[in-house]
Amino acid sequence: MPDPASLPVQIIDITDPDDERVDDFRDLNSVDRRPDLPALPGGRPGKGLVIAEGVLVVQRMVASRFAPHAFLGVDRRLGELSETLVTTDDPAAVPFYRADADVMAQVVGFHLNRGVLGVARRPAGLDVSAALAGASVVAVLEGVNDHENIGSIFRNAAGLGVDAVLFGSGCADPLYRRCVRVSMGHALLVPLAKLPEWPGELELLAHHGFTTVSLTPDPAVPLLAEAVESVDKVAFLVGAEGPGLSAAAMRASHVRARIPMSRGTDSLNVATAAAIGFYELARSN
Amino acid sequence: MPDPASLPVQIIDITDPDDERVDDFRDLNSVDRRPDLPALPGGRPGKGLVIAEGVLVVQRMVASRFAPHAFLGVDRRLGELSETLVTTDDPAAVPFYRADADVMAQVVGFHLNRGVLGVARRPAGLDVSAALAGASVVAVLEGVNDHENIGSIFRNAAGLGVDAVLFGSGCADPLYRRCVRVSMGHALLVPLAKLPEWPGELELLAHHGFTTVSLTPDPAVPLLAEAVESVDKVAFLVGAEGPGLSAAAMRASHVRARIPMSRGTDSLNVATAAAIGFYELARSN
Repeated sequence: MPDPASLPVQIIDITDPDDERVDDFRDLNSVDRRPDLPALPGGRPGKGLVIAEGVLVVQRMVASRFAPHAFLGVDRRLGELSETLVTTDDPAAVPFYRADADVMAQVVGFHLNRGVLGVARRPAGLDVSAALAGASVVAVLEGVNDHENIGSIFRNAAGLGVDAVLFGSGCADPLYRRCVRVSMGHALLVPLAKLPEWPGELELLAHHGFTTVSLTPDPAVPLLAEAVESVDKVAFLVGAEGPGLSAAAMRASHVRARIPMSRGTDSLNVATAAAIGFYELARSN
Repeated sequence: MPDPASLPVQIIDITDPDDERVDDFRDLNSVDRRPDLPALPGGRPGKGLVIAEGVLVVQRMVASRFAPHAFLGVDRRLGELSETLVTTDDPAAVPFYRADADVMAQVVGFHLNRGVLGVARRPAGLDVSAALAGASVVAVLEGVNDHENIGSIFRNAAGLGVDAVLFGSGCADPLYRRCVRVSMGHALLVPLAKLPEWPGELELLAHHGFTTVSLTPDPAVPLLAEAVESVDKVAFLVGAEGPGLSAAAMRASHVRARIPMSRGTDSLNVATAAAIGFYELARSN
């Protein structure tokens, strides 16, 4: 492990938790003030940042289109990240704010086990056509408002070869810190885009040659394996646990399909159902 | 909804949080004293109880081989459960301790959103042969020490038609409250058994006609779909995230198989990997 002091990284020691230079990492659990709230025009005063937490996720942020403009961490994590830090575009221009665990806890608002954070500005969102370029399997979410489920979907998408994740109406923020953490950083790497006109914009997917497949527990629809047997490019629609997909979304999709489920049990967790859909495609390619 | 007062249920109002009659629900988050610790011979002073939390899970406990001997809950949940309670063997003999949310929080040790608990004694564990009777797909866990993952595996097992869950070495307690809750009560319904001689007892599975299949991310082994193509009864072995299955467990199994994964990504969550294994079997039946 190289000595951090010998690296072209700008290390700044923070001893005062009120230091304004670390404001982008302040009060991460605050509902109203956390820095990783999206910047909404005329809405909440979000700073529009993205926070990566822990060595692995910070490494993935550095590798992603989200270019970090600062880090905050304890000395040990600086050591672990030193080789990653020099791969940023201009290491000397991106400060690493070094603090002890107590000062860091006071800034962040809680004790952070993972010991290091990176912060980036949110770039402009991809438009759907950009996210679909070269894609053959995509996931489309509707009403998934649980950050852990969205994070798991990104992790499963990355693992099982899904090319993009698209967001219909009613979903939670995929770039919130907890979502990014649960995704193991894949929320920063897998292309994502919003479909503001929902479900009308599903037509755009059809236009790009995708067969849209709605996953539903309805026992009257064909099995997933049959539904995707001879399709080329597939978009899997999944809805939140409980309500599932809206009738409008199901009507707007080409096919409905189900996972073979035992009678009398609850539907699967949405991230698990999505993973099974992704697997069904991956197994036949 | 029938009036609880008209039901043959023994309702006992609890106003003193120190009332000894609710000791089986006391300090649920205590590491040492929680009542749902297994009773270990000569070991920790566990009471050997199982706790069901929330209306749905309590309903499933009543339907399971875990016969509740008491309930603690707020009046509203008593109303919601009234039809379930009269289906217990002898409703008048099983007290429902009714308390307000504050008293309940003082007993339990935290504010319990779900508002109702059931408690049962742990019956003697099933032996492996009993758990395997009539089974054609079983899951076998090694080193899975995360309660949420075990709970998810039970939920996925129930949903995807898995007949039993078996526990090799190093797993967390599948009957701990959080596991039962995440499983949506299926940890009480899906047969489970321990394999104390690990991995030697995998031979017992072979003796019962099961092909033992170790899931591994190793890219050199056959794909899951090929590995299970012509097998009759299957036991899926899964290990903890990170370490995976031990070399000894893999050697003791008949086949190794992998889920097709993208290069350079992390392995899937263990419950997700298991769900994909269960699905692969369910899709071809």
